[in-house]
Amino acid sequence: MRSEFEFIRNIKEKYGLLKVGDDCAVLPGDSKAELLVTADLLVEDIDFRLGWTKPGHLGHKALAVSLSDIAAMGGTPKWAMLSIGVPEQIWNTTFLDRFYRGWSELAGRFNVELVGGDVSRAADKVVIDSIVMGQAPRGRAITRAGAKPGDSIFVTGSLGGSARGLELLKSGATLSAGDRRLVERHLRPTPRVEIGSRLQRRGSATAMIDISDGLAADLRHVCSESNVGARIYFDLLPVDQDLNTVAQDRICDLVLGGGEDFELLFTSRQKSFSDMNSTRITRIGEITSEPGSIELIVDGKKTQLPRAGYRHF
Amino acid sequence: MRSEFEFIRNIKEKYGLLKVGDDCAVLPGDSKAELLVTADLLVEDIDFRLGWTKPGHLGHKALAVSLSDIAAMGGTPKWAMLSIGVPEQIWNTTFLDRFYRGWSELAGRFNVELVGGDVSRAADKVVIDSIVMGQAPRGRAITRAGAKPGDSIFVTGSLGGSARGLELLKSGATLSAGDRRLVERHLRPTPRVEIGSRLQRRGSATAMIDISDGLAADLRHVCSESNVGARIYFDLLPVDQDLNTVAQDRICDLVLGGGEDFELLFTSRQKSFSDMNSTRITRIGEITSEPGSIELIVDGKKTQLPRAGYRHF
Repeated sequence: MRSEFEFIRNIKEKYGLLKVGDDCAVLPGDSKAELLVTADLLVEDIDFRLGWTKPGHLGHKALAVSLSDIAAMGGTPKWAMLSIGVPEQIWNTTFLDRFYRGWSELAGRFNVELVGGDVSRAADKVVIDSIVMGQAPRGRAITRAGAKPGDSIFVTGSLGGSARGLELLKSGATLSAGDRRLVERHLRPTPRVEIGSRLQRRGSATAMIDISDGLAADLRHVCSESNVGARIYFDLLPVDQDLNTVAQDRICDLVLGGGEDFELLFTSRQKSFSDMNSTRITRIGEITSEPGSIELIVDGKKTQLPRAGYRHF
Repeated sequence: MRSEFEFIRNIKEKYGLLKVGDDCAVLPGDSKAELLVTADLLVEDIDFRLGWTKPGHLGHKALAVSLSDIAAMGGTPKWAMLSIGVPEQIWNTTFLDRFYRGWSELAGRFNVELVGGDVSRAADKVVIDSIVMGQAPRGRAITRAGAKPGDSIFVTGSLGGSARGLELLKSGATLSAGDRRLVERHLRPTPRVEIGSRLQRRGSATAMIDISDGLAADLRHVCSESNVGARIYFDLLPVDQDLNTVAQDRICDLVLGGGEDFELLFTSRQKSFSDMNSTRITRIGEITSEPGSIELIVDGKKTQLPRAGYRHF
């Protein structure tokens, strides 16, 4: 069975696509700015369940995942398009109005303008394609390819919360206040747009990605594109504080393998960063010169980070 | 029940979206060119059936519908993104390779480069979002809003073939050679990219749209955006020659109401055009000064064109 990553790599190789593979496509804009474009497809019962989420939260998330891709390149989001397919029985409810309300609330926060899209009927599942376009100064977008041995590795915010939130939704359990915050992290993620663009303006990140597939998989993307290795320290990982009731080995799975935290992972020659936008920036390890090797240090013991992150297939 | 058009109008009004409503969104590019962006969502069992089409044809069509939107504004397509969701049982076949082969064959013809997208699992239906970005000289993209009373109305190629092709597929009938051409028109439409950009370079079209919803509905879009009326002559309509076995009243439905011909409809102060790119350009009527009135002249008798074109809902 082919994984999504292999498939995209195959497509890249077969058709000689050089621009596919970062968080956004980078297109020539004007003499000052480049255009960043990203598309994210969200399919009902794969990427979300209507029974678990409110239409407004779904609208928020559809935009948030694409804003996160723009943030991961240090870009400023400007325009969006939204293609949505809805089954007839949903068309005739308030679903779409509530969906757009959630969408446009988040769009308004970042001055993102809806410039187009497509609405059509779908057979039986809701399907959403979210497209966001943004700008970065010419040659200054932060790619996955610039990490150098000796760079420190940082993440914004906290990790593991979204994956645990999804587990809780799946379990159908009664939720504590902390559990509800975890579920909220999954359903209504905060894209780190201001932090991404601040890092770009300062020129302080050498490589960046957003954590959508999970820390393990996304760090591997950076290492692979930068042709380097990495060493991270379990004790340094900023575990979501609401995971305090979860056993340590499960925390490891959630933080390394769970996806959709939509935090930023970046590398820098700097050794530390103070909070940005009231969000903690945590140093979790360093880049090494051994391509393909990602070491995890747990209680002083070294292991290789598992190759598999979260995969759709 | 709300129609797709009403819904988009409501969304436009509610959120103050001025850029939504033409074939493409028009974004500022550099000092010379504007950026055109279009997205089209294709959902299995609504927009296509896997039993009726080959994967390669589907790849062709997914791109063709978006290229047609760029053509309708006189733009030159440059970049594309493709988001595709596939159920697991299809992922494990040659479907995606054949789909991309059809897609990239057409992309190669117009030097369109795949710059990104998203591949994910879908529950049980294939879903495709096709995004194409192109360029037009600053301020020179052809919108739907420039038609003036006295302008002539033209269409490229022939009409009704795609809708008849779809009927034939639905009927399951054994197909004659002519029928197979009609089916081909439906499954593998030709976007009129060269003609659109030639009209733009010459500055000879005052308004333009591609015929995706059907002549009646698409002409109404032009009239509504241009605040004019129109008069068209049934005898002048370039009916697909393979409809010669179809009764005249059905031809009227197919040509006026049937969609997906992906021909260009444009208005011009010129009274005639010679063939372009080996494709016939036919004058079918003229723009009038009466907003909202679209007259159809059949056998010298005047009727108002039905307001309803093809609608998804």
